[in-house]
Amino acid sequence: MDTSLLYLFDLFGTAIFAISGVLLAARLKMDPFGMVVLASVTAIGGGSIRDMMLGATPVFWIIDNNYLWVIFITCLATLLLVRQPKQLPWYILPVCDAIGLAVFVGIGVEKTLLLQDSMMIAVIMGVLTGCGGGIIRDILAREIPMVLRSEIYATACIAGGITHTLALYFGLPSQPAFLLGVVTTLTIRLAAIRWHLSLPTLSVKS
Amino acid sequence: MDTSLLYLFDLFGTAIFAISGVLLAARLKMDPFGMVVLASVTAIGGGSIRDMMLGATPVFWIIDNNYLWVIFITCLATLLLVRQPKQLPWYILPVCDAIGLAVFVGIGVEKTLLLQDSMMIAVIMGVLTGCGGGIIRDILAREIPMVLRSEIYATACIAGGITHTLALYFGLPSQPAFLLGVVTTLTIRLAAIRWHLSLPTLSVKS
Amino acid sequence: MDTSLLYLFDLFGTAIFAISGVLLAARLKMDPFGMVVLASVTAIGGGSIRDMMLGATPVFWIIDNNYLWVIFITCLATLLLVRQPKQLPWYILPVCDAIGLAVFVGIGVEKTLLLQDSMMIAVIMGVLTGCGGGIIRDILAREIPMVLRSEIYATACIAGGITHTLALYFGLPSQPAFLLGVVTTLTIRLAAIRWHLSLPTLSVKS
Repeated sequence: MDTSLLYLFDLFGTAIFAISGVLLAARLKMDPFGMVVLASVTAIGGGSIRDMMLGATPVFWIIDNNYLWVIFITCLATLLLVRQPKQLPWYILPVCDAIGLAVFVGIGVEKTLLLQDSMMIAVIMGVLTGCGGGIIRDILAREIPMVLRSEIYATACIAGGITHTLALYFGLPSQPAFLLGVVTTLTIRLAAIRWHLSLPTLSVKS
Repeated sequence: MDTSLLYLFDLFGTAIFAISGVLLAARLKMDPFGMVVLASVTAIGGGSIRDMMLGATPVFWIIDNNYLWVIFITCLATLLLVRQPKQLPWYILPVCDAIGLAVFVGIGVEKTLLLQDSMMIAVIMGVLTGCGGGIIRDILAREIPMVLRSEIYATACIAGGITHTLALYFGLPSQPAFLLGVVTTLTIRLAAIRWHLSLPTLSVKS
Repeated sequence: MDTSLLYLFDLFGTAIFAISGVLLAARLKMDPFGMVVLASVTAIGGGSIRDMMLGATPVFWIIDNNYLWVIFITCLATLLLVRQPKQLPWYILPVCDAIGLAVFVGIGVEKTLLLQDSMMIAVIMGVLTGCGGGIIRDILAREIPMVLRSEIYATACIAGGITHTLALYFGLPSQPAFLLGVVTTLTIRLAAIRWHLSLPTLSVKS
């Protein structure tokens, strides 16, 4: 894919995930600096784990500081724009999370395929990049991680990652394959949020 | 040790830990894909942290995809075999955890000694490999991590790791040393589960 | 800075953070070996994440076992000195945490500048080194991470890290710059504990 477009998507996902961290920090009445910390781990946590596991160290945001600037500016903008307490609709946080998730699954797949041949590893690293930051955010904030709730979440990431890699496998150029994957993850996840969809679960009592 | 035997033990521990993840996912009513995610972090989490700390990257399951296949097949088999809700005895999950724990402490010791000379580091990496995946599993599932409950848990790992390295130090071949360590960890841990054994605790109130 | 002095500070911070882990383990009635595990993750967790992200692997305590000996001796000494249950004042744990925090922010800044030029990365790695171990300790112990509570915490680390790097930038030698940063972090954090200071928070309801 045109790397500059991939890069723009990456910074966009970073900003969106940072917003989801700021929103959760605000709900927890964290101060502005705690907010920056939570926004940062959400935005760069998943990619950092990916890079450490792949051995692509120093991790991406140490090499390219733009990710950090995007986070700081996003936090600052949110603080300035949302100056007075007000009731945001409940779905803003999961929708931001869904957009960041969809973009980061695609980014994770693309970045992994630069280093590894295996499509299975690419899908898994896509899922990890997408889910990782949000899991750390939710653990720190003592929320139930979204990935654990019954609504379709891991499923959306896995479907998006598989669509992306299959599209590449069948010869689609990198850019439409990326977009196809992002749209798949996002559509499934947004539909799950909108209609409270969930897959049947295995209820072993133990 | 005969590396192929070590490898079989490693895949066996992976499957057992994956089952413990599936069981916990079922208790939490997670869907099949969330279940695969929880099974995976349990089975490969500890070893991934070990490899990242040792600098042995890309981590083991990126290099050898068999670990992932074992996890997928274990999840699928569990889903097919346990088709209807039923009451599993309470001890199934801690016993699976104990077997995976014992095997992974030994695997961690062996893998570390391939890269490092220090027996202390080998014991610590064994404990980390054994406990790591289960800790991540329990944190994600918002359970109290087993390692924190009063029943002997960290103690069993440390005893097993020390037995294993001492056996090597006193000249035992790799294979019996490994088995001696695994049996030590497993015996102590199973006894602790069976008779609710615990060490005296230091009760500073603060 | 004179590296041997930096090293002594590092070991001192390790011991102090280990004590904070032991105190929390005692409150949770963990057994002695569980206590060693919690003390260890607190004392070396932040630095391990720093080293893994920077690609400085194997991480520092694998290369230099003295850190581990400091932790073991600290645990042993605490067990021997605090032999009978007694009521420790509530502020002992946060004050130990504050001292370890201040020292480790400085250590993180110094160690990062050996590998990276960016002062922004140095500050972030300082914050990560300082906060990382305590966050893992609190997550394992199912406490609300101190960094998330409203009292000034992340703010103290960021202020200390920025003071430290600015002092270096304006030409101060390494040793006074380090001390200035440590004193800044510690003063702010102790004042926050003493007078329950907190910054205004952004209260978006969502």
